[in-house]
Amino acid sequence: MKLYNNPDKSSWLELLQRPTKSVEVIEATVDEIFKEVKEDGDKAIKKYTIKFDGVALETNLVSKAEIEQASKLVNEDLKEAIQLAKSNIEKFHSAQKTDKVFVETMAGVECWQEKRPIQKVGLYIPGGTAPLFSTVLMLVVPAQIAGCKEIVLCSPPNKEGKIANEILYAANLCGVTKIIKVGGIQAIAGLTFGTETIPQVYKIFGPGNQFVTVAKQLATKYGVAIDMPAGPSELLVMADESANAAYVASDLLSQAEHGSDSQVILVTTSQDFADSVSSEVKKQLAVLPREAMAEKAIANSKSIVVDSNATALELINAYGPEHFIVATTDNDFFVDKISNAGSVFIGNYTPESAGDYASGTNHTLPTNGFSKAYSGVNLDSFQKSMTFQKLSKEGILNLGNAIELMAEAEGLQAHKNAVTLRLSDLKK
Amino acid sequence: MKLYNNPDKSSWLELLQRPTKSVEVIEATVDEIFKEVKEDGDKAIKKYTIKFDGVALETNLVSKAEIEQASKLVNEDLKEAIQLAKSNIEKFHSAQKTDKVFVETMAGVECWQEKRPIQKVGLYIPGGTAPLFSTVLMLVVPAQIAGCKEIVLCSPPNKEGKIANEILYAANLCGVTKIIKVGGIQAIAGLTFGTETIPQVYKIFGPGNQFVTVAKQLATKYGVAIDMPAGPSELLVMADESANAAYVASDLLSQAEHGSDSQVILVTTSQDFADSVSSEVKKQLAVLPREAMAEKAIANSKSIVVDSNATALELINAYGPEHFIVATTDNDFFVDKISNAGSVFIGNYTPESAGDYASGTNHTLPTNGFSKAYSGVNLDSFQKSMTFQKLSKEGILNLGNAIELMAEAEGLQAHKNAVTLRLSDLKK
Repeated sequence: MKLYNNPDKSSWLELLQRPTKSVEVIEATVDEIFKEVKEDGDKAIKKYTIKFDGVALETNLVSKAEIEQASKLVNEDLKEAIQLAKSNIEKFHSAQKTDKVFVETMAGVECWQEKRPIQKVGLYIPGGTAPLFSTVLMLVVPAQIAGCKEIVLCSPPNKEGKIANEILYAANLCGVTKIIKVGGIQAIAGLTFGTETIPQVYKIFGPGNQFVTVAKQLATKYGVAIDMPAGPSELLVMADESANAAYVASDLLSQAEHGSDSQVILVTTSQDFADSVSSEVKKQLAVLPREAMAEKAIANSKSIVVDSNATALELINAYGPEHFIVATTDNDFFVDKISNAGSVFIGNYTPESAGDYASGTNHTLPTNGFSKAYSGVNLDSFQKSMTFQKLSKEGILNLGNAIELMAEAEGLQAHKNAVTLRLSDLKK
Repeated sequence: MKLYNNPDKSSWLELLQRPTKSVEVIEATVDEIFKEVKEDGDKAIKKYTIKFDGVALETNLVSKAEIEQASKLVNEDLKEAIQLAKSNIEKFHSAQKTDKVFVETMAGVECWQEKRPIQKVGLYIPGGTAPLFSTVLMLVVPAQIAGCKEIVLCSPPNKEGKIANEILYAANLCGVTKIIKVGGIQAIAGLTFGTETIPQVYKIFGPGNQFVTVAKQLATKYGVAIDMPAGPSELLVMADESANAAYVASDLLSQAEHGSDSQVILVTTSQDFADSVSSEVKKQLAVLPREAMAEKAIANSKSIVVDSNATALELINAYGPEHFIVATTDNDFFVDKISNAGSVFIGNYTPESAGDYASGTNHTLPTNGFSKAYSGVNLDSFQKSMTFQKLSKEGILNLGNAIELMAEAEGLQAHKNAVTLRLSDLKK
């Protein structure tokens, strides 16, 4: 870890900068595949599945038999763990339900706000060596609670044409409507336009590599909403001497193992503590199976010593971390005053992995400083808020004149007239 | 209005299609101005203000003296109307505040969700002949209630270097932090990168022409959030013979006067009613000052006769109108079952203009079918939801094993290790 001792505020911007990647090269590829999928539907999907996943599928719809077989192959302990996580995620996201907000703003002017489910959602689950079944729980559970009618899950097939057993088990457990073996750009294009087998959806969720990220961005141009823009995963730990250096090191490493572009930052008020964490990191790193990857990320990581909690807070808010662990003698100070963070982990016994898997909070969170403006995925991500209003005769009589004046001042005569007509009838 | 009598379902997609505009030509211009503003700051802003607004400003910051003078020039009746609208908007958006959502998902595992304000927001108010001060209310009021710290309003100067009195009055009344005379692409670029006088913000709100729309889209590429993608304004009225044809015509016309690309649709179960509305439209159109514009929009508008309320509902949900007026004998049916609409206006005495100005609901709403996935602007638009979790020793003991199993199955050994370390200490 690179150590920065009381860096001058003028250097913060550079110090906290995330690596930026140029995606312009990718954009042309994504554009081309989108056009082809729009034009040729499943034919194009098949072509790119052969090209990128190296497998020719007869059908890319996962059958009931496949799901049943997959479920049998997941071991019972893991099933119980998944069920426990699901139950916690359900409890936390169910609690996020809100009632209708009803206000009679003036006599006879009733206004209300209601949340209604997004009818069709597409969830993307990456493939690769490690099956990210935890993301299935994080996306399907709130989609179900929200009441989304069509929940389509796409995940790339492996060379044998299969999706990992754990993903199929979790998807089925949570009630996915349709599971489709399709990955990468072609999956996002399929969900955007719809094909013979892939339903067109209104919003696309889920993580992915930079191809998927650029494809999701392009999908928004075609009117499909996405959960949030994505970037490499991040963790910032704020800790002082009251924290446990070994725990902090283990948390930093758990972030670092996500990939060599992971962002890992320690902020502390104690130089000694920074040193202890640094040597703990070396010790633990040596025994990790993903050592090479984690080592690279740790090499890019930063240990920043600051003079006070106030300075630390300012720096953390300037960074806006995706994951923020706080283990200090004054956690309340940080919890109360943090403005920009995706999810906050408090105290010595709350590792980031708790939220990644099973505490109940969602692990789909804003990276890249997006926590300054974006929420992590939550129940509202699967709903939209709609407003309603109903004016009685009394209501329009109370409000009408103000509307007429404002419409006239904005030069919108027909807006005024819609009120005037009603008022003159009522005043007859 | 073009009449469609019981159109076959297979024709709906075409029938309900919005006109699509190619923005590719604009994109290059927007790109160029963004690059220049990023590079040259205020110098570039000044250059483009001269070019597009035809005025060279000494400073583009609106002074206190200017605000005071402008306020004196707004007439008292209009001020009262604006204050009434503000009060209703405040009541409705204040009621949208939510409490912390707290759940102990398992013994010792505390999770909660809180909403915190987006610290810096930029609001764009178009210039032009009609000063859209109502949009000032719709954006500043919820920003204030949310607790946004910096509320920057940008609006283009006229040839005399001024912003409309009503806009300055409303902005000051609602507590805008900073008002800047800058419009179009250069305003959005300034808010995206920050300049010597324009603060960089985290989220940009507000309507605008196609240049502003494309600029907002580009801003998202630089990590700035936006309220929603934009398109021409729309109204769909569902009415039967219980409705008042003159009122319905006045509502359709109030939408049509927004511009020749406005979308105006009547759905009805009665051919006779469709005919009455059509002749009422002709009658009212003749006396409108914006007749030419409204006439064009009305020429593109559609009157669709369907066989039942059920068919009507299906068609309306397929369209997903921005504004949806329902005036039938069974309004509850539509209110209960509408899935996709921005804002709903119920009954004979609730013209769209009520919500446009003063009922209390927000008038910044999803167009172009985006109501299928997007909310209109509401209090949440100015906040982000953050999650928190705190595990006690008991908590990690209860949850730890499930996390270990799941992390291991996902091949994330360091995630597991962060738990194992803590568990072994506790089990010592």
